[in-house]
Order: sequence, then C-alpha cells, then structure tokens
Amino acid sequence: MSRSDDAAGGTGASEVDVIVIGAGPAGEVVAGRCAEAGLSVTVIEHERVGGECSYWGCIPSKTLLRPGEVVAAARAVPGAAGAVGGVRAGVDAAAAFARRDEMVGGYSDEGQLPWLRERGVSVRRGAGRLVGERRVAVLAPDGGEQVLTATRAVVLATGTRATIPPVPGLAEADPWDNRSATGARAVPARLAVLGGGAVGAELAQAFRRLGSAEVTVVESGPRLLAREEPFAGDEVRAAFEAEGITVHTGRRAVAVRREAPGTPGGPGGPGTPRGPVVVTLDGDGGPEHVVADEILVAVGRTPATGELGLPVVGLPARGFVEVDDRMRATGVAGDWLYAVGDVNGRALLTHMGKYQARVAADAITGRLDPAGRPAADRADPGAVPRVTFTDPQVSAVGRTEAAARAAGLDVRAVTVPTASVAGSSVRGTDAVGTSQIVVDTARRVLVGATFVGHDTQEMVHAAAIAIVGAVPLEDLWHAVPSFPTVSEVWLRLLEAYGL
Amino acid sequence: MSRSDDAAGGTGASEVDVIVIGAGPAGEVVAGRCAEAGLSVTVIEHERVGGECSYWGCIPSKTLLRPGEVVAAARAVPGAAGAVGGVRAGVDAAAAFARRDEMVGGYSDEGQLPWLRERGVSVRRGAGRLVGERRVAVLAPDGGEQVLTATRAVVLATGTRATIPPVPGLAEADPWDNRSATGARAVPARLAVLGGGAVGAELAQAFRRLGSAEVTVVESGPRLLAREEPFAGDEVRAAFEAEGITVHTGRRAVAVRREAPGTPGGPGGPGTPRGPVVVTLDGDGGPEHVVADEILVAVGRTPATGELGLPVVGLPARGFVEVDDRMRATGVAGDWLYAVGDVNGRALLTHMGKYQARVAADAITGRLDPAGRPAADRADPGAVPRVTFTDPQVSAVGRTEAAARAAGLDVRAVTVPTASVAGSSVRGTDAVGTSQIVVDTARRVLVGATFVGHDTQEMVHAAAIAIVGAVPLEDLWHAVPSFPTVSEVWLRLLEAYGL
Repeated sequence: MSRSDDAAGGTGASEVDVIVIGAGPAGEVVAGRCAEAGLSVTVIEHERVGGECSYWGCIPSKTLLRPGEVVAAARAVPGAAGAVGGVRAGVDAAAAFARRDEMVGGYSDEGQLPWLRERGVSVRRGAGRLVGERRVAVLAPDGGEQVLTATRAVVLATGTRATIPPVPGLAEADPWDNRSATGARAVPARLAVLGGGAVGAELAQAFRRLGSAEVTVVESGPRLLAREEPFAGDEVRAAFEAEGITVHTGRRAVAVRREAPGTPGGPGGPGTPRGPVVVTLDGDGGPEHVVADEILVAVGRTPATGELGLPVVGLPARGFVEVDDRMRATGVAGDWLYAVGDVNGRALLTHMGKYQARVAADAITGRLDPAGRPAADRADPGAVPRVTFTDPQVSAVGRTEAAARAAGLDVRAVTVPTASVAGSSVRGTDAVGTSQIVVDTARRVLVGATFVGHDTQEMVHAAAIAIVGAVPLEDLWHAVPSFPTVSEVWLRLLEAYGL
Repeated sequence: MSRSDDAAGGTGASEVDVIVIGAGPAGEVVAGRCAEAGLSVTVIEHERVGGECSYWGCIPSKTLLRPGEVVAAARAVPGAAGAVGGVRAGVDAAAAFARRDEMVGGYSDEGQLPWLRERGVSVRRGAGRLVGERRVAVLAPDGGEQVLTATRAVVLATGTRATIPPVPGLAEADPWDNRSATGARAVPARLAVLGGGAVGAELAQAFRRLGSAEVTVVESGPRLLAREEPFAGDEVRAAFEAEGITVHTGRRAVAVRREAPGTPGGPGGPGTPRGPVVVTLDGDGGPEHVVADEILVAVGRTPATGELGLPVVGLPARGFVEVDDRMRATGVAGDWLYAVGDVNGRALLTHMGKYQARVAADAITGRLDPAGRPAADRADPGAVPRVTFTDPQVSAVGRTEAAARAAGLDVRAVTVPTASVAGSSVRGTDAVGTSQIVVDTARRVLVGATFVGHDTQEMVHAAAIAIVGAVPLEDLWHAVPSFPTVSEVWLRLLEAYGL
C-alpha cells in the first residue's frame, strides 16, 4: 500500500467540507466523526497517522511498563511469587521491546488507515499550513504543494513535541525525549531523567524495571507529579526509592556535558559510540554531578504550531492555540477555525484530545445532544481524569484539594489508606497508597478524587461519573461497592466524611 | 484471650438497646454502627466473629484464586511471560494454602474482636434464639442459658449454609461444601462440582489452577452463572474449557456413590482413607458417570433460621426472614425485629449484607440522611452489584436485559468487545469478554451493566454510581475515560448507543 492520497480512499479534491491538520488521536476522531455525519473530510499528516500517542507516547510507554507491573504483582502473591524472580530479574527487556514494536505496528501506520478509510476520510501525506481563511496549503514529501479549501471548517490538531530547556550543553548531549526513550532498543545502564511529571516518572520506572542499574530523576519542584495531590508524589517517590530509583527534588540541571566516546566510565568503556553524560545539579543540597549513559528530557511540551502559518489568520506565530469551549480558535472570526488536542493547551492528555475532537465535530456539524444542548466541553477543568501508570498508579479526576480552594470552592477532603480494604489484601501483600475525595461542602458533591495504589486505573471512572453527574453524597451512599474489591474505599471514604 | 463475654469489652448486662444474633459481616456492621450512634449493643455468635465470608467464603476463595489469576496475567505479557511457567505449573498450592490460612487469621477470630471492642459492643459466645418480643435466650458453649432483653431492637444476622440437595447417596459421600473446599489442605486430583453459579465456578477454576488434573462442573440449567447475562456464562465456559475444565450444562446429578477406601482408581489407590466418588448424571446427552476424588456441592444456600425460635414471634419456623426496605421483619408488630444479610434472602452477597446492616442501624437509631430521608434500601433490586472472581471476571450491576424487560422496562442493550480498547491490549495478549450497558430508553439512564474480561472488578462501581445517580446518557458522555484504560469501553458503548 503506497502512502498516497488514496491510501484511505481520498479523492484528491481541492475543496472539501472539513480539513484537519494532524492525524493523531484527536485529528483522527474529529475527521472520523465529521465523516460519519456525512461531511467530506481531508486529514493532512506529515508523519504517521495515529500520532504521538500511538508510536511515541501512551502506547509504547504503557507497554514497556506492563511487564514490570505484572511481575511485581505476582511477586506480592504467595502461591505465585515462587514462579517469578525478582522484579528486575523477571522482566525480559528484549521481549518487552519486541512487544512494544508490535504495539506500535512496527512504526508503520498502515494499521491506522482502515478506520479512516471506512469512513471515507481522505488522507494527504505532507505538512499543512494556513494560507488564508479556510485555505490550507499541503506541502507534499515530493516538494509539490497544493492549496485545499474547506467549506465548513479547518481543524488544527498538530499536537506537541518535547520541550528541550535551554540548559547549557543539553541539546549538544543528544538527549532522549519521549520518542527516543519509548523507542529504545537497549536498556542504558545509567539513566538520568529531567522532569518528575507523569512522562518522566513512568519512563524512569520502566527503565529501572527493564534493567537499568542506576536511574536518577531530577525534578525542580518540591515533589514528583506536581499537578496531583501532594501525597501522590510522595507515595510514588517512596516506591521509587524502595526499588532503587534515586529522586532529587528541588534541584535543577544547570549544565550537561556529553563526554567523548570511549571515556572511561562510558557505556561499554573505550570503543563505544557514545560517551557518558555528566549532569550538574544545583538547588537544595548544593551542586552535585550525576553521571549517566542517557539523559531523558521530560520537562514539558511545546505546541507544534510554528509551521502552521497562524499569523495569516491573525494569531501569534507560535504557542498554544487558544480555543473556546466549542474548540473554536479565539480571535478568529467566522467560526471556521478549530483546534483540538494538545495543540490547544487545555489538557495534554490523549483522551481529552479525543473528547475535544468529539465536541468539535459536533460543533462543526451542528449536532445537539439528546437533551437538546449544543456541543461544548463540559469536562474541563472540573472533570479531567488522568492516570499516571507508575506502580503504584496515581489515578485522579477533577480538582485537587488545593486547586478546588484556588477556584474558590469551599471543600473538605477526606482520605483513607487504599490498603485498608480487604480487596487490597486479597490482591497481594504489598498494598500501598492513599485514596481521597474532595467534596464541595455546599452542594455535597464530589469535585475531585485521587486513588493511589496498585491497579487503580479503572477506579477513576466512577469518580468521573460522580463529578459529571453531580451525584450527591447521600446518593453515592447507595452505590454499594462489591466485596472484596478495592472500590470498597468508596465506602470508607463516605464513612470518613460522616455518612 | 478467652472467648468470654468480656472478650470485646462486654458487660454481661441482661438488658441492652440492641441485640444482634450472628456476627458475620452484616451482624458486625449493624452492631458497630448502632454502638457508634451511642446505643448499647450485644452481639451473639456461636461460631466465629467475622462469619462465613471471612473464614469460609469470599476471603479464602478469592485468596485461592489470586495466584492463578496473576500468573495467567503475567503469561499474557511478553517481557514477563518468560518469568513464569504454565499457569498450573506456576501456582504453588502449598504457598496458596498458607496465604489462605493467614488471610483467615488461622481460623481464629481474635483479629476481628478489636473493631467491635473499640465500639463498645459486647460479644456473647453461644447460640441465640428468640423467646419472646425483644427477648433472646443465649445458650452458652458450657450449656448455661441466659435471657437478654433488647429495649430497641433485635437483629437477626445468622446467614446461610450450603444447601445439600436430596440426591441419593450425596450426603453419605461426605461431599465438600464451601467450607471444606475453601479450607482444603490438599488439591484433589479429580474434583466434581455440582452447581455452576458463582461459588461453583470460582472454586472449580481455583482448584484447576492449584493443580487438579480433572475438574468437572455440572450445572442443571442451560449455562454457567445463570443470573448474569447469557454471554457472561458462555464466555466463562469458553475460558474454562480452554484451560481443561469440563463443563456439563443441562445435566443434573441423579446419584452419587462414594466407593470404599482403597478402591482402584481412588486417590492414592489402596490404603488411602477415602475412595473415589462416582456421580451419575442425567439430562442432555443421556446418562453418564463422572469419577472424582472430591465432590463440591454449590447449588444454593439455606437460611440458618431453624434454631432461631421464629414461631415464638409468629413467623414460619424456617426459610428466609422476609423484610421491608428498612430491614424490619414482615408480619412482626412493634418495629423491633430486623433481619440483615443472607438470612433475609434479598441479595446473598457480603457487600449487600453490610449495606443492609447500615440501613438497619440507621432505621433503629432514627438517623436521617443528609437530604432528610429516613433510612431505606435504595439499591435492591435495581442497583445490586456483583463480581464473579473467575478469570475472566464477570462484573455486573443492576438488571440484566432480560430482568429489565421482565420488570416492565423498555430497554435497549448495546455491547462491545472488552478487548476492543487499547487498554486491553496494553494489559496483555489474552483480552477476552464482552461489555454491555442496558439503557432505559424512556429515561435515557442505565439500569444495568456487565463487564466480562480480565480484572474488570473495579469497573463495575462506575456503573453502580451511574444507576444510583440516574445520570442520563448525555451527561455520561462527558465523563471521559482515561486512555489507555479498559474503562474506555464506556466510550465505545455510548457510541454504539448512538451518541
């Protein structure tokens, strides 16, 4: 199958109803949903249909985490523990990398095309940029350029790329970003990670469990996972330290130097292609050096907007594209320009990008919901769920206690140990973590929830429904958690609140 | 610590506010919650504080299932699979039994007493029976008897025991029930299981994975897990057959014979204490014989009411004690007699017994909920959750499609494969199962949901909240499932419904 316009059934027409620039998860969904509603849609992609998440983000990172997670789970179960070695001994990195390759389709997007093809979406290979109102130029890989016109809407969905901060020597050290890390074919003996957010924390633990002898996380803020409840970062840090990951908080890298190949102490010693990296830290505790074989940069994301031609439509040349709650670009008249996914900066999470894409598609097609309401983002900022797939996991939705107070809400938070319920003991001998609900005391509804523990990823959707549905505590009391599940923390939390 | 009246701080007083007969989970909760509200409470227990669930039910059965579950999970993860052998080879039955012993506190209830003691609940060892209005006689283990009087309420919480059906030869064959099976100290080479409900299915798979060479399940109905959606029983059956468990449906045992010890073909052959059991089946496919070393009976539960003295208060001598939605025994004047847990026959599930206990305690103490409503069971029958901890698990809440129609509801059910979401692929290569929601088409709210798949146990609470909160589909649409979790089936289900 050639990577032509016709790969997904496209016609090459220069006028279509909707043009989508970027075929990551958000771009695919907005294209598919508009097409399902009967519109003609062209999506433009200069890399791979499926985007960052499918090849260099969620999918490979979670795939690389899963072996360590399940081996750790088995080790905590008498009767199963004897079947596995230590967590790191039990994980086979080569097999994990092979599974990663399988999960990313061998880095080919052929597997992603049928979904678009079935919906009649045309795929254009190339880079798209705005050249006027509703007009998009496509620069094809062969250098040819064509201008397309959208009768209804243009949707920007180009996502973000890893931010490389201006630390002296860092760029020259050829650092890893999420792409190189998730695409690794070997496990570095020593890995330094700049940034203790979800990406940094997940990949730090993945490589530790895949076999890295030394993993060091450097976070400039006071704790890991800064956007979550303080206890979440503290509990993940404790777990990291217990399995040999070094965590520096309140410290930042001030200089990075990649030594010459063959430098003593480098990976494999003399003759190897890359020398070691020396990272100089400053901050709490004074200067210190960390020596590693690879350095992963995970300090944030930069919107991929610099090549989009935004000034043509009166927007700043770079930065996130600000949108309203129907995903229309703020400051652009005519209701024709939309932005969904990471590129709008609202919530840099695949599922939120796909959600925004559904909102945008319904806004473009004029679809009302069954209650007769026009499409709008009703989840952000009050009901955004997120899961950090470390072990223990941090699964949360809505506002943290501090964020709720900052938003002017009168809230009360209650916590219980996730390990306090029988379901946690049945699962294994290693139960850890804290569960919390944040309650709006006036309305007696949840505005936030956090579940730290093993395998809490499926627990957060219940809280998302409670928040979105504004289900009062006195009704939540009658949603009985099954025994012995870990969801019984809901009962303990409501009891702790006073029910 | 002696097993005396004082074991949990009791005073031996002959008049108290509340008397609870039976200290299983439901009895413990009603006693504890009444005591927390300031009432004096005596609970009477003739076996172990903690009851059937803690020693012979949920806790040991789930503990025995867990090693096989986690080893199977690891085997489905490239990168972890190499660390474990085959599922049955990977499970160490002796270690699993030792963990079971630990989880049941060595079959001592000393660990259960502090919770009651802290609340000032008095524990009486012995058998309780009604001898008049608000009057209960306690027959102590030493043969002494004392009559207690309750100023407020008497709560019956004596639970159920396994039903042994009148199959010729069955009782004489010394069959296993849930107690002997969960308490096993050795794995029978051949196990026959009568009954394909949750108890029979769970224990069949537990023993297969603990090492039984032949496990045969005999179910008289058309499929396993008769109370769940038909696809659930079918999918569990397929999984069972794939791992070598024989399933007979539409067949019943018509005769059972335990051969003499030392019979050729018996466990260990001549000289062993028990001979094999021969079970004669009839029904679909004609007569057939199943030979096993042990036969587990799991065909239902009989309420433990025969010794309660019910006729003294005008109730039938045996059978379930019918209650209203405040847990008051129907037909007994004066609002003083309550029944919670299995003994009332409403929903034979530990969590529902504990829920009923909270309702009863609040009814007894006159507590209103924060909305000013008096206590009442608002979960049964529309929002009862249940998890069958087989692998795959069957996690469900509310009504099945058929039950909803039988209740006169106009419903539409939609299904998607649980394996259709990325979260299932990340988890392992073995994703199976179907997820379903049942929607009341008039009100556009969920009335039921079923999730079949690995590790679905924590997914059902979201549906419980959706049902109890009567959250309409158009609001559920804005509860965004995190990527890549298995909860993304919610999105697929709502899309399949037409959102």
